[in-house]
Amino acid sequence: MTQDSLHIVKVGGKVLENESYLQPLLHGFTALKARKILVHGGGKRASAVSRKLGITPRMHKGRRITDADSLDVAVMVYAGLTNKQLVASLQALGCSAIGLSGADGNAIQARRRPVGEVDYGFVGDIENVNTDLLRHLLEGGHSPVFCAITHDGKGQLYNTNADSIAAGLAGALSAAYAVRLTYCFEKPGVLRDADDDSSLITRLSKTDYQSFLDEGAIHSGMIPKLDNAFSALAAGVERVMICGPEGLDGSIATHLYA
Amino acid sequence: MTQDSLHIVKVGGKVLENESYLQPLLHGFTALKARKILVHGGGKRASAVSRKLGITPRMHKGRRITDADSLDVAVMVYAGLTNKQLVASLQALGCSAIGLSGADGNAIQARRRPVGEVDYGFVGDIENVNTDLLRHLLEGGHSPVFCAITHDGKGQLYNTNADSIAAGLAGALSAAYAVRLTYCFEKPGVLRDADDDSSLITRLSKTDYQSFLDEGAIHSGMIPKLDNAFSALAAGVERVMICGPEGLDGSIATHLYA
Repeated sequence: MTQDSLHIVKVGGKVLENESYLQPLLHGFTALKARKILVHGGGKRASAVSRKLGITPRMHKGRRITDADSLDVAVMVYAGLTNKQLVASLQALGCSAIGLSGADGNAIQARRRPVGEVDYGFVGDIENVNTDLLRHLLEGGHSPVFCAITHDGKGQLYNTNADSIAAGLAGALSAAYAVRLTYCFEKPGVLRDADDDSSLITRLSKTDYQSFLDEGAIHSGMIPKLDNAFSALAAGVERVMICGPEGLDGSIATHLYA
Repeated sequence: MTQDSLHIVKVGGKVLENESYLQPLLHGFTALKARKILVHGGGKRASAVSRKLGITPRMHKGRRITDADSLDVAVMVYAGLTNKQLVASLQALGCSAIGLSGADGNAIQARRRPVGEVDYGFVGDIENVNTDLLRHLLEGGHSPVFCAITHDGKGQLYNTNADSIAAGLAGALSAAYAVRLTYCFEKPGVLRDADDDSSLITRLSKTDYQSFLDEGAIHSGMIPKLDNAFSALAAGVERVMICGPEGLDGSIATHLYA
């Protein structure tokens, strides 16, 4: 039996912050014919609100620690302002977007990251995706728009990495749909030279990726993104690509191969 | 044909701010057997966040003016923090809550309040309720949890009075369901003496209401609430009651009659 297609598009912070990136992304998302889900990151807006509220971000080796105040700001900015503005913009384009956190309809349940050398605070790792709910919404013609907030099923909200949410949704929904997972950021895809858009790598196999890593040609920020992307392929996601805000149709993008 | 019952419960700011009110309300809502929708107001949290962000509320004759900064705060606090905390708490009790603003699934479209003597800013009056979406969610076993944010269908979010949202939903959904509309606040219902909970009026007809108004026995804060409530009855809502956080089952409440 041929499965229906489902596009899952993760959009990063810099695209959200710049209208000249955001508008083509929203038009491209609306134009996708298949069932679709948008996942958005946070970006600098939460940091700006935190600063104004007098909350100093606590960091450990470059990673943010989410204390109770920082979690409140994340929920306000990601689930509130950013999510609802994206939903209203998509509705204006004729896309029936519905904004969700992981708490809504118990869409994504997470467990608190275990305390090891450091306690990252209210950070959750995905435990379960409610595919029944998502299928109910998708089959009703709606497009879920996820912020990077989850919950534990016992009343506690968590901050969760948006790339992980996209990969978690893609893995869980691959049983029901032929999933195409797209990571959309401000560059047109994976570049041989980060400063030269014309150096786009259009096809990237796992073996190529390893070679680029060995050469040091792929820079640090891309590594977790590509690790997530290749994990998704291994988990049964049909297609994975990395592209810019104008590349959702796949014409200008880096397509990954196992 | 007998219609299925739908409970619409509007909960006010003071109940949200006090755990000793909020917990019984959430348990009572979860215990309702019928299809159900929760609508929540804002309360003092948005004012507190505004103050911390250095935004001074602008007022005109006691009514708040929603400028762009105030709208951002309303969206952050109502659609973000308050909505997601309520949803996570209901999920913990086993209620499949889904948080919505009016933008989500185009649930509630509004138009900007016309500028008369004063421009109230980004305040919307309800124009249309997407009953198809709400029926899809309710028949799927989910309970929508609405914050008091709407949109215009063209990308603009609005602040909308939560009592009006509850009444608007009740009116629109009365074609499909036998709707019971409940306004829940910190008192057990409409009181003859605002300082004496034992002076509860258990049945209140429109005629009685007019007499109490003429006597001055019903105080100012109750008047818009009761006007809204009697309008809902006139619009075809089957039952309307006003109660406290422990009164959702109707045993201790003011039941209104046309």
